[in-house]
Amino acid sequence: MNIRTIDYKNNKIRIIDQTKLPLKLEYIYIDRLEDLWLAIKTMQVRGAPALGAAAGLGMYLGIKNYVGYNWKEFSRKLNAVANYLGSSRPTARNLFWGIERIQAVALANKKQPIIKIKQIILDESKLIMRQDMISCRKLGAYGAKLLKNNDRILTICNAGILATIDYGTALGVVYSAIGQGKQVKVFSSETRPLLQGARLSAWELGKQNVDVTVIADNTAAKLMRDGQIDMVITGADRIAANGDTANKIGTFNLAVLAKYHKIPFYVAAPKSTFDLSIKDKSGIKVEMRKSNEITSILFKKNVAPKNSRVLNPAFDLTPHQLIGGIITDQGIIRMPYTQNIRETLKKE
Amino acid sequence: MNIRTIDYKNNKIRIIDQTKLPLKLEYIYIDRLEDLWLAIKTMQVRGAPALGAAAGLGMYLGIKNYVGYNWKEFSRKLNAVANYLGSSRPTARNLFWGIERIQAVALANKKQPIIKIKQIILDESKLIMRQDMISCRKLGAYGAKLLKNNDRILTICNAGILATIDYGTALGVVYSAIGQGKQVKVFSSETRPLLQGARLSAWELGKQNVDVTVIADNTAAKLMRDGQIDMVITGADRIAANGDTANKIGTFNLAVLAKYHKIPFYVAAPKSTFDLSIKDKSGIKVEMRKSNEITSILFKKNVAPKNSRVLNPAFDLTPHQLIGGIITDQGIIRMPYTQNIRETLKKE
Repeated sequence: MNIRTIDYKNNKIRIIDQTKLPLKLEYIYIDRLEDLWLAIKTMQVRGAPALGAAAGLGMYLGIKNYVGYNWKEFSRKLNAVANYLGSSRPTARNLFWGIERIQAVALANKKQPIIKIKQIILDESKLIMRQDMISCRKLGAYGAKLLKNNDRILTICNAGILATIDYGTALGVVYSAIGQGKQVKVFSSETRPLLQGARLSAWELGKQNVDVTVIADNTAAKLMRDGQIDMVITGADRIAANGDTANKIGTFNLAVLAKYHKIPFYVAAPKSTFDLSIKDKSGIKVEMRKSNEITSILFKKNVAPKNSRVLNPAFDLTPHQLIGGIITDQGIIRMPYTQNIRETLKKE
Repeated sequence: MNIRTIDYKNNKIRIIDQTKLPLKLEYIYIDRLEDLWLAIKTMQVRGAPALGAAAGLGMYLGIKNYVGYNWKEFSRKLNAVANYLGSSRPTARNLFWGIERIQAVALANKKQPIIKIKQIILDESKLIMRQDMISCRKLGAYGAKLLKNNDRILTICNAGILATIDYGTALGVVYSAIGQGKQVKVFSSETRPLLQGARLSAWELGKQNVDVTVIADNTAAKLMRDGQIDMVITGADRIAANGDTANKIGTFNLAVLAKYHKIPFYVAAPKSTFDLSIKDKSGIKVEMRKSNEITSILFKKNVAPKNSRVLNPAFDLTPHQLIGGIITDQGIIRMPYTQNIRETLKKE
């Protein structure tokens, strides 16, 4: 089954509403910046690379109705759109990467008529999508080399088709290995609070006929101990210059558990997820989300006492020491990370 | 607020229906063995020490309507009841401990008239409850010595009032420390799949005016890393002769995470949870529960694709090497466990 997470069709952004999965596959069409902001905030669209694409298209939405001929004014408008879009979710690097890329291409063409710059922005945002499709396949091919026949992969959240345009990062590695004829089994950690592992990863893996088993996040240690996991592969939302990685809350747990059980732990992410402007994890802002994700939202009733105090960070930070390698579209990066990340990102 | 998890009133077992919490505090009254079996199976009553009490009372329910005067026949009936009750849930030692204790007291009185033996069985099952109330308080007092003012305790599942008669084991330690005037803050890991941490522990701690914060199980590692946890205390369902401990799925995760972060990890359990007949964790049977606990039951709709493959072990096994101490009603047991457990259990 072909699944396309985000696209631009008939002058609108078309996204799969990921809050409706797995019950129904429903598309929504967005042509107002405010609606996109809300779709990002409420995670109708999510996943770092998909957010990069959404950011590009969002920049276009924000300026497409601009009337005027003045670069300075246009540029101010573009910056306002950038700030607004960036305020939706703070942690994923790709969102800002997409925004900055559009700003850069606009600036490089500032001598052009505004109408031309608008077209350049739209073209660039479409290019981001096409490049993501290629980049995921390259990443998948690099990662697939790590997998042996009959490997059992544990993953968390969704770093698959639904987190990218159409292929995935961590799950792209699995798709690629299976494409090479290897048997691969996936354990999908359900990923509380929003259950992207149960709702999204199990759904798309099922659609691709991959053998997938859903577990409670609590079951990871037991599975590892029982010798049922050969490798952990997760996505990433932001990777610092030294390899420290922000990803969905629970990722750091898996990294520690994998270390204890001597199971390889890999992160899979394209170049656009790296943030060389920050030295290490201390520079990464972790988004805090609402209590009701824990207490009620998916249950439609309270599962914790009313007015419970709740702490709900959406991400955690995995120190690079626990990461066996970072699978990128430029190859697999290994320790020492600071040096090897810098060199790998310079390529191409 | 006084809460009594299980009691015997007007010839019926009265239990709090824990599947209804935290939405409502509802009691159910049971006078048929089959109904008790179902209440245990569906976890309307749960928690190892509470199951010990339920088992005692259940043995009485099973024979109270026996008519006859023959010890042999009565004894066969009692064994049938024992087997049936024991088939409800396999992992918690206390259930079997309660059953065996009733069998032993019956056997010791086999020369008595059957009507007298029945009364002895009822008295013994009430004694189990009274002793649990005392034992939890002793355990709490031992454990409270470990806690400093302003300590922040992480716990999982519910090892509190609702897991015992009226005081708790892991949470009994907290109640006892607070009773001594210490400030103690609790982080309650929500405990997927059935959310005993969010539904039960947060509820009872709130009723006792304890400062409690609910987190997703995935948040434990981040909290530890951020220096927000001083100690982990969990309950236990069965402890082998060498200290290996079966407890709610997710406990082993916390033990590994605590080790990595150099945070003390304690198990709290009364003598009745120990099983010296098994050498180590390889002898502990882990209950596997239904898929729908993961995919739908609390949500009232599917959060994973229909017919998802699911692995849902109710417990995991924490190797004794990760346990800093076992807080019991006889004092705190430390390494080497095999020797110190044997000696401690001999006391009294």
